[in-house]
Amino acid sequence: VRPQDLIRVKRDNGEMPPEEIRCFIDGVARSEIPDYQAAALCMAIFWRGLSEAELSVWTDAMLHSGRVLDLSSIPGRKVDKHSTGGVGDKVSLCLAPLVAACGVSVPMISGRGLGHTGGTLDKLEAIPGFRTSISVDDFMRVVRDAKLALIGQTDDLAPADRKLYALRDVTSTVESIPLIASSIMSKKLAEGIDALVLDVKVGSGAFMKDLERSRQLAETLCGIGRRAGKQVTAFLTDMNQPLGREVGNASETREAIEILQGKGPDDLLDLTLQLGAEMLLLGGVAADQDDALQRVRQARRSGAGLERLRRCVELQGGDPRVIDNPALLPTARHDRVVAAQRAGTLAEVKTEQVGIAGMVLGAGRKTVADVIDHAVGLTVAARLGDTLRAGDPLAVLHFNDPTRADAAEPILLQAFVIGDGPITPPPLVYEVLR
Amino acid sequence: VRPQDLIRVKRDNGEMPPEEIRCFIDGVARSEIPDYQAAALCMAIFWRGLSEAELSVWTDAMLHSGRVLDLSSIPGRKVDKHSTGGVGDKVSLCLAPLVAACGVSVPMISGRGLGHTGGTLDKLEAIPGFRTSISVDDFMRVVRDAKLALIGQTDDLAPADRKLYALRDVTSTVESIPLIASSIMSKKLAEGIDALVLDVKVGSGAFMKDLERSRQLAETLCGIGRRAGKQVTAFLTDMNQPLGREVGNASETREAIEILQGKGPDDLLDLTLQLGAEMLLLGGVAADQDDALQRVRQARRSGAGLERLRRCVELQGGDPRVIDNPALLPTARHDRVVAAQRAGTLAEVKTEQVGIAGMVLGAGRKTVADVIDHAVGLTVAARLGDTLRAGDPLAVLHFNDPTRADAAEPILLQAFVIGDGPITPPPLVYEVLR
Repeated sequence: VRPQDLIRVKRDNGEMPPEEIRCFIDGVARSEIPDYQAAALCMAIFWRGLSEAELSVWTDAMLHSGRVLDLSSIPGRKVDKHSTGGVGDKVSLCLAPLVAACGVSVPMISGRGLGHTGGTLDKLEAIPGFRTSISVDDFMRVVRDAKLALIGQTDDLAPADRKLYALRDVTSTVESIPLIASSIMSKKLAEGIDALVLDVKVGSGAFMKDLERSRQLAETLCGIGRRAGKQVTAFLTDMNQPLGREVGNASETREAIEILQGKGPDDLLDLTLQLGAEMLLLGGVAADQDDALQRVRQARRSGAGLERLRRCVELQGGDPRVIDNPALLPTARHDRVVAAQRAGTLAEVKTEQVGIAGMVLGAGRKTVADVIDHAVGLTVAARLGDTLRAGDPLAVLHFNDPTRADAAEPILLQAFVIGDGPITPPPLVYEVLR
Repeated sequence: VRPQDLIRVKRDNGEMPPEEIRCFIDGVARSEIPDYQAAALCMAIFWRGLSEAELSVWTDAMLHSGRVLDLSSIPGRKVDKHSTGGVGDKVSLCLAPLVAACGVSVPMISGRGLGHTGGTLDKLEAIPGFRTSISVDDFMRVVRDAKLALIGQTDDLAPADRKLYALRDVTSTVESIPLIASSIMSKKLAEGIDALVLDVKVGSGAFMKDLERSRQLAETLCGIGRRAGKQVTAFLTDMNQPLGREVGNASETREAIEILQGKGPDDLLDLTLQLGAEMLLLGGVAADQDDALQRVRQARRSGAGLERLRRCVELQGGDPRVIDNPALLPTARHDRVVAAQRAGTLAEVKTEQVGIAGMVLGAGRKTVADVIDHAVGLTVAARLGDTLRAGDPLAVLHFNDPTRADAAEPILLQAFVIGDGPITPPPLVYEVLR
């Protein structure tokens, strides 16, 4: 069958035969299928969607387009967490060590930030010396020793996904639930995990702004995992304001360390505990939800989580002194307060704009080629529903280049919408899909 | 604006701004827009369609991606005819000389056959020496002298269309009415004509099998022409059986010459007269439809049409003796009768299959790289509604290679469906849209 015949089947809303899907994805991975045919098929899928059966084969074919890790030599269940991305989302950095401290191995392969969202790899690289790009053998060694490893995607994991993702980016075929879901799951399933907790973000700082589409994505992700024989739990969580207080790379790492030190903001702590408890349940080391929550709390209180992170940083070449002294992380030279221009209630945060303000400061990338400054960022000083007086701080910019601060300030100011009368802040977790 | 942003607009069913459409088509023509972005946009258009305004700009941009002929130095109105393609459709070969003989210049740029359909250029090239590929200057000289010229598309006419068409062919985005219509009209408008008669084929041998979609295409084509300030008339005509009796290159040219000699089959003659009369009206050389029909009939009776063709053949390097002696055209070495296997009424002709049988004999191309044999083809011996006895001829194969005849025979046999009881043959012309 020629590629154009498979495109025609999808275009006409037919069911693509499994063998032809595999052949197509394989051809994409080997660069034997021209980009224009892959682009046409992606747009047809954007239009017509994928059936459950097609989606499973599509994901499996992408997963098997490259190396699939075999972690069976590492004892116990391996559980990972994946977030669909948001602003201030540094959960992985405190979550993975806590779960590891409770006895569940966390082989975490993360991405970089792009656009308004941050990426775990960039935050980790704020730690002097920390290497996110290590061999698969080293990765397994770190997981075995520290029970967690935090690395970036290697070239040989799901190469078909990498090619298709780059193509979707330039053909406006990104925002398709089946294509997003298969991209996420092909990479996660290639990690060789037993179970996965998904944090699907909803709101003004998420890729999915409304609950309905987020729920669809969560259900699609869970379905792929289930049909691949993996346990998957999806949390639908709020991204109508930044998570925690810090937006920036070094500052987010610092805030995550603070959580492990028994400090840190409530929302970040709460979400970390809930996701962690679920990972313990999926990892088979807790009797029930209460027991799981107790264990994660205990790992935080005892400092065991902090020790896991220290070990991981050491093993991955980073300077472990930052664990006890986060002030060793890079800091920006200047601060500037962005203040409320009127009194009222913080009614809305245009969270994507907050992320873009961070990007403008240098904390993020507009294109993959941009170089980021780990030291810069912003601290959010107001939460949804807060009563503000004129002149109260909304956020503090941390910057090295004043012209960037000048550009970021008005973006940030517009992102905080002050209204009258009380508002009900959104819940932290909307739903949990198991 | 980046190409992906324009793709996004169409994907989301928005209106593409004129300047951005022009920029995109220009980029396609210059190979500055990558094929994968053009493919994604074509699939989005396949899905969402084009508004009238978008379609006009899209067509105009394709038209202006290359040279636009200026025929204003040739006196009188210039009128062309375009057929959407069928089996046995040799109308252009007898129509253009008759119209030219009546005083309307016909600057006709035609295509080659592909798949089950024949192409005017291939039929003309059955004439020894006839050159379909001549310079634009020579083309204009022939039009001025003979009042008609019959050539193939030059590289500099609507190059964006040629690129997009090749891409659509391998990305299953061919069968989109706005894309088909803009492709046809961009090439025709680049000829510098004043008016156009369209023969939109409907039925089992046409690209559009049903009347509703054919009507949509006809209306779309007329709309583009009207908005470009050209008079366009569209005929919806029957393609539920081959037009005329001959399917093949030399044999179709012979049949067209026979029409000009006062002979030939009724259906081919009737359609030629109707289309010709319309071209005379659009060309401003007839008072009304009756007058126009009289003039075309007179040009046939007087031999003036035959003289126009002779002049055109001479000027384009062909052997003019074929005009008086069509037996000089190449003929196949062998004939084989394909006979009815039962008695009954000819109830259905799977006309696309008849075309494919011709292609298998060597009269057509499966891919553009195939070489055709001008001598081979088939003569259709039965018409819809004919009463047949077992053993009556359905068709006669004309072939040089017996293995090809062996392959074509069963295809042809299955194409003729013999039923019981009378059937009403379809009309030759369904509708005329002005």
